[in-house]
Amino acid sequence: MFYHDKKLQYPVKVSTPDPVFARMLQQAIGGVEGEIRVCMQYMFQAWGARGPTTKYRDMLLHTATEEIGHIEMLATAVAMNLETAPTKVQEAGAADGIVGTVMGGGSARGAIEGMLHRHILSTGMAAFPANAEGVPFDMSHIYASGNLAADMYCNVAAEATGRVLAVRLFNATDDTGMKDMLHFMIARDTMHQQQWLAVVEELGGAQGALPIPNSFPQSEEHQKFNYNFFATAADGSAPQAGRWTQGPSIDGKGTFSVFQNVPMGEEPVLGPARPDSGAQSEQIA
Amino acid sequence: MFYHDKKLQYPVKVSTPDPVFARMLQQAIGGVEGEIRVCMQYMFQAWGARGPTTKYRDMLLHTATEEIGHIEMLATAVAMNLETAPTKVQEAGAADGIVGTVMGGGSARGAIEGMLHRHILSTGMAAFPANAEGVPFDMSHIYASGNLAADMYCNVAAEATGRVLAVRLFNATDDTGMKDMLHFMIARDTMHQQQWLAVVEELGGAQGALPIPNSFPQSEEHQKFNYNFFATAADGSAPQAGRWTQGPSIDGKGTFSVFQNVPMGEEPVLGPARPDSGAQSEQIA
Amino acid sequence: MFYHDKKLQYPVKVSTPDPVFARMLQQAIGGVEGEIRVCMQYMFQAWGARGPTTKYRDMLLHTATEEIGHIEMLATAVAMNLETAPTKVQEAGAADGIVGTVMGGGSARGAIEGMLHRHILSTGMAAFPANAEGVPFDMSHIYASGNLAADMYCNVAAEATGRVLAVRLFNATDDTGMKDMLHFMIARDTMHQQQWLAVVEELGGAQGALPIPNSFPQSEEHQKFNYNFFATAADGSAPQAGRWTQGPSIDGKGTFSVFQNVPMGEEPVLGPARPDSGAQSEQIA
Amino acid sequence: MFYHDKKLQYPVKVSTPDPVFARMLQQAIGGVEGEIRVCMQYMFQAWGARGPTTKYRDMLLHTATEEIGHIEMLATAVAMNLETAPTKVQEAGAADGIVGTVMGGGSARGAIEGMLHRHILSTGMAAFPANAEGVPFDMSHIYASGNLAADMYCNVAAEATGRVLAVRLFNATDDTGMKDMLHFMIARDTMHQQQWLAVVEELGGAQGALPIPNSFPQSEEHQKFNYNFFATAADGSAPQAGRWTQGPSIDGKGTFSVFQNVPMGEEPVLGPARPDSGAQSEQIA
Amino acid sequence: MFYHDKKLQYPVKVSTPDPVFARMLQQAIGGVEGEIRVCMQYMFQAWGARGPTTKYRDMLLHTATEEIGHIEMLATAVAMNLETAPTKVQEAGAADGIVGTVMGGGSARGAIEGMLHRHILSTGMAAFPANAEGVPFDMSHIYASGNLAADMYCNVAAEATGRVLAVRLFNATDDTGMKDMLHFMIARDTMHQQQWLAVVEELGGAQGALPIPNSFPQSEEHQKFNYNFFATAADGSAPQAGRWTQGPSIDGKGTFSVFQNVPMGEEPVLGPARPDSGAQSEQIA
Amino acid sequence: MFYHDKKLQYPVKVSTPDPVFARMLQQAIGGVEGEIRVCMQYMFQAWGARGPTTKYRDMLLHTATEEIGHIEMLATAVAMNLETAPTKVQEAGAADGIVGTVMGGGSARGAIEGMLHRHILSTGMAAFPANAEGVPFDMSHIYASGNLAADMYCNVAAEATGRVLAVRLFNATDDTGMKDMLHFMIARDTMHQQQWLAVVEELGGAQGALPIPNSFPQSEEHQKFNYNFFATAADGSAPQAGRWTQGPSIDGKGTFSVFQNVPMGEEPVLGPARPDSGAQSEQIA
Repeated sequence: MFYHDKKLQYPVKVSTPDPVFARMLQQAIGGVEGEIRVCMQYMFQAWGARGPTTKYRDMLLHTATEEIGHIEMLATAVAMNLETAPTKVQEAGAADGIVGTVMGGGSARGAIEGMLHRHILSTGMAAFPANAEGVPFDMSHIYASGNLAADMYCNVAAEATGRVLAVRLFNATDDTGMKDMLHFMIARDTMHQQQWLAVVEELGGAQGALPIPNSFPQSEEHQKFNYNFFATAADGSAPQAGRWTQGPSIDGKGTFSVFQNVPMGEEPVLGPARPDSGAQSEQIA
Repeated sequence: MFYHDKKLQYPVKVSTPDPVFARMLQQAIGGVEGEIRVCMQYMFQAWGARGPTTKYRDMLLHTATEEIGHIEMLATAVAMNLETAPTKVQEAGAADGIVGTVMGGGSARGAIEGMLHRHILSTGMAAFPANAEGVPFDMSHIYASGNLAADMYCNVAAEATGRVLAVRLFNATDDTGMKDMLHFMIARDTMHQQQWLAVVEELGGAQGALPIPNSFPQSEEHQKFNYNFFATAADGSAPQAGRWTQGPSIDGKGTFSVFQNVPMGEEPVLGPARPDSGAQSEQIA
Repeated sequence: MFYHDKKLQYPVKVSTPDPVFARMLQQAIGGVEGEIRVCMQYMFQAWGARGPTTKYRDMLLHTATEEIGHIEMLATAVAMNLETAPTKVQEAGAADGIVGTVMGGGSARGAIEGMLHRHILSTGMAAFPANAEGVPFDMSHIYASGNLAADMYCNVAAEATGRVLAVRLFNATDDTGMKDMLHFMIARDTMHQQQWLAVVEELGGAQGALPIPNSFPQSEEHQKFNYNFFATAADGSAPQAGRWTQGPSIDGKGTFSVFQNVPMGEEPVLGPARPDSGAQSEQIA
Repeated sequence: MFYHDKKLQYPVKVSTPDPVFARMLQQAIGGVEGEIRVCMQYMFQAWGARGPTTKYRDMLLHTATEEIGHIEMLATAVAMNLETAPTKVQEAGAADGIVGTVMGGGSARGAIEGMLHRHILSTGMAAFPANAEGVPFDMSHIYASGNLAADMYCNVAAEATGRVLAVRLFNATDDTGMKDMLHFMIARDTMHQQQWLAVVEELGGAQGALPIPNSFPQSEEHQKFNYNFFATAADGSAPQAGRWTQGPSIDGKGTFSVFQNVPMGEEPVLGPARPDSGAQSEQIA
Repeated sequence: MFYHDKKLQYPVKVSTPDPVFARMLQQAIGGVEGEIRVCMQYMFQAWGARGPTTKYRDMLLHTATEEIGHIEMLATAVAMNLETAPTKVQEAGAADGIVGTVMGGGSARGAIEGMLHRHILSTGMAAFPANAEGVPFDMSHIYASGNLAADMYCNVAAEATGRVLAVRLFNATDDTGMKDMLHFMIARDTMHQQQWLAVVEELGGAQGALPIPNSFPQSEEHQKFNYNFFATAADGSAPQAGRWTQGPSIDGKGTFSVFQNVPMGEEPVLGPARPDSGAQSEQIA
Repeated sequence: MFYHDKKLQYPVKVSTPDPVFARMLQQAIGGVEGEIRVCMQYMFQAWGARGPTTKYRDMLLHTATEEIGHIEMLATAVAMNLETAPTKVQEAGAADGIVGTVMGGGSARGAIEGMLHRHILSTGMAAFPANAEGVPFDMSHIYASGNLAADMYCNVAAEATGRVLAVRLFNATDDTGMKDMLHFMIARDTMHQQQWLAVVEELGGAQGALPIPNSFPQSEEHQKFNYNFFATAADGSAPQAGRWTQGPSIDGKGTFSVFQNVPMGEEPVLGPARPDSGAQSEQIA
């Protein structure tokens, strides 16, 4: 179960509110690279963790809980960036006259043109769980496979794209407060990339953990095709050489090679449609 | 651009059609762990590949193209597993009397109860781009970040969950033809896990590629917090020790430690709502 | 604006309620082949109709309004088919003992296994705007392009798949009441297929209306490639001959031929990533 | 920010695991009536709370935090109900032979037919953030309007449908452990219904808070039509009388009456399409 | 069944077309606070209405039918606001030269930057069933629970957020015609808020109708926890006092109190993964 | 199975990059009128093709394969149009100073306001499978019904809306390279409209193929209502005459007439709710 503190994990300050930057920050809340995703992903991985130890459930809950606080920081930053946003389509701005001089190089009409309209129409100048285009977050992005190693790579992927996003946001603004908040978040993403790879290392690294799932005997997979790069150039030209076309495989269990793809199966013939299946008569034998 | 061969990449045969297994196979077509996802993910990564070399675009196109053929195999397998499926809610089965004796231990009524109804109603006994619950595939799952290393970890994640899925499908059936098809696909997933990790190795491995993006100077992130595990237990109890709580970090650039989480920010006060913002009067100062 | 009559357009009766057939009927309510789709599609086409006459707005409103009544009939049929559905996972059925003897060849446990659980959990034994797998209808399927001829073909497509669905539902049940309701709906789908094609005929038929949009001068399209079938077989084998590989085109403005596909462009080189774009260093020149 | 305790808020025990009940419980996790929804809804309402006081942010955070623990309980219950689920489509069940005798009246084949396949294929017998049909939760259901009174009614709606769902789940099972967990959750839903209505009362009740938003002067709305019931029967027959057709309005500011609907506007004529708009020539004047 | 009149329910006029306001109006068509939602919600509640009387079906059909006319008005208003919208990304505007002088303070390039591109690309300057960010309406927002009181609160929530939206749209424009249309719609939202609360009053008000569902005996819920506010502050600090922390409950059946949250359950231990479940070997006992 | 060539099907060149046109092009990639849709639609129709001949599978595979190359061209065009896009919300533009002089009449701030932010934040200046508003493509738009004639009309609909879109894109830009690419694509859409209609002709044209499915005997549909236009005007006024109100039907099997709609059914009475169904007590008899 869970507890809260009404103070924020790290300071959130905005010097010059910009509703277009508020839109950008939404990507870090409700984007696929964002914080709702990692928070819920770690939660569901924890809640479904199976194995002889509770160690991984424990670890995952710590980090999942940390991430709720990150969503909170970003939601607060969005609300602050919307403080002086326009509420009218006309240039004059809001009825209270607080708009017009503060935006980063833009006009009130420009801000209306560039901001998310749902920040005006649906939330009254606050964050919502959607991305920078206003597309709501969809929980199908919560990856929790029941395989610990697979989940760790899903987490590395999430934190890698997450740090790329945080860096892009950092680069997109000159606001001192926002840069300070983001430089904290970028640091946390560094740690989280490390953390999930540390679990893979503890699970045996590339040699012990791969191929995932390692509980399936490789003797049952098609061993002629499990370490070769399939080339599909129509003219048969070879792929450019790389670490993946020759030499020992990463798991040390095979040798990379190149295989020019050819069909090994036949043209499939499904046969006629059934009389009661709603097909055209011509499809029914 | 692209070409095709009307023959299949690898043989697809079904000994005993089972419409419930057809439903399961849909997960490998339109599930987030499935083949449409990897196919389109590698395509979009290739098409957006930036850098001083075309090497990665080249590699990605080979594998993306291979994957189209995997979708085709699975779609064919679904159609074959639906050959004798019932088309009526009543026990008697289809009008053509071909239902009733072939299912793996079930009855026609049971098959209707367990199969996807859209296989009857929407496709006329064929595959469609949805998962095992009938939820259509959503292209938001195509991860192509513009950062090569991040993309490679997204691909490892996709192939790790993909091989887990293929193994579960292999375990779920006794059908010889289906097991043969799947043992080929499991092998390809093994290779693809290796392949993306080989790119990471070529890009410098953990030390050279991390933290992702490596183009952002770590001097600009909050260096007090980039290698410590944040503990969030309300009673302050320490997390269970692991590779991630102590010792050198995976990238060799820091040392893991534990930090008991405390708020560093303040309680945020957003202030009153604006007069024209549609709030209740009580929220307006 | 709109009016209603509390009576139904056509009688809806159910002799033997079957919750699995209720699930099937959902496809005709909230499926992409269903009635919400055509209703809303015709409404939005009417509301956006531009041209020198109000004739098409008028026609579309008549049929859109008819379709609301079809949704109503189906929703009523779903509720009636759920009358005796089980509400417990255990065999015993509902607390009121009304379950157990009425289903078409199945058991209460079987019905629970095959019905939509949201019929129990979310609606209390009534219809909802989702398809036979419980996936909610998504309004992106409302096609209203602003081009009258394009819209008519969208409508033919909707009514063609709609009548296929209605026929499959008709075939799936032996219930007299349900068959009577469906035989009415199948007739209406026949008319609606005719109706939209009649508009195309009035607009000039294949010769006058095609290619759509006919307001774009064909002199501005690439006239070398507008009537030839592109063949993409990797081995250059010719496609099987058909009406589309030779002879005059359907619009009478060209002649069909076959073109063996070859690349006319070059390999694209996007060049290096920008320094502030969150790419890996290796991608930045 | 947030903290956790690795113990559960309330005991979760399952006497007889049933994978079909696991499917039902998913509705309380990822359904629109479920716990992710209320958790995130209260969080975003708290994070965007504007007004002269932090009182409502404070209250909302307490309850939002409580709700995370409810998701955790349900996710645990799902995993427990899946303990003995089948993993094969054939009757024999799982390779470890733990399936077959425990389900509530069903068979292994029946369980496969009735359970969510993603519980086998995607999660390895654990919960995921989707509903009872396997449809992922979509964050567009997080209502946080920036108007405190509107939000409170959204919350009452969520807890009303939530308690209806919890009661239906309670009725659907005979498992003692599950009934105990649910009878706790039903109690919490009772409180939460009360709680949000108590806020409305504190904000002035029906007379002070309505119409929402109360910051918009009623003098600017069309006062002829703000307290009358529009009747739309095509034959002009009167609606059945109710509290809403006569007598004082609920807010005490008007008197209910009945108005037979008639068009007050004209037939709209949009005029011809523009030459460059991709319409058919016939639509362009 | 249903009928139509080709005239509009209320006049729709636009003095100065603005494609950015057209975008805003889309929220009232296809947003979660919009008119498709209430129309379809009342329809499905009517079609699934169970009880000893047809009174509520009757009432719901009147209002659902009224709402179709509201969608029609808004769709017409969108098309009118798009009359002079640009169709080119360059400043010059449309080929017919009708763009450039009419927008509310903006330029043609600015309008392109701020309007929905699908108004140009997909609809040819007409409305579509999506919100102000172009996200299609998703029918999962149609709440029809089978519990009359729960549904009424869902309806109050819809009309409360709906009137908040209408007020924000009213504030966002200076166009006389648009303000007239919206002041009619705001009035109707006032009535509809009243109407649904009137049903609750007829059903017994807070005392008779709560807790919802009132058909579940409160003796079966956990009576120790059904009227107390759970406080989750990690430091045990008390919540700010409110109507919900003390005094009689709103339904008069209990007394509010505060309970400092503590875990009553244990740490859950799910045990090892099964051998055939695709987990890592380390997770299998 | 499939092969590729790393060269493009047709040249893609951009003279003046414009990030707002990049946004527009996304509609042709991930919009419902776009290329992913037709590619995948033809693929799934091919893979599920049933009938006595493989001719239609063969044809569909050729064209589906062609379409992959169209997605590739458009994705390349998007990346090229983003070459000089801004990466900062402030006017100054990107850190590398490459922004500011090239856009078609706009400013850097304007471009930020009008472009898709995910082009900066999620892809690093590349295409992604979403439409012009950033809404991801959803595979529910892949129509493959199992009825060949219905599928052909779905394909005509897709290519008709597709050519309308391509024409609008052509009209929206003055860029020579983009116009050249689009004039090729418009030509291909012309052919594809022809191609699918040629199949219908081969299947018997309007007389042989209609009503779809033609395998259902018209003697079983309600023959009184299969060729008449239902008029729903509340005042009984006749619809405007058209090809669809009189004369022989398009399939030559009936005669069009007009029928003034009246209810043929009764008011449905669902009866009381069941005791264990979570309804209010008042709904239970």
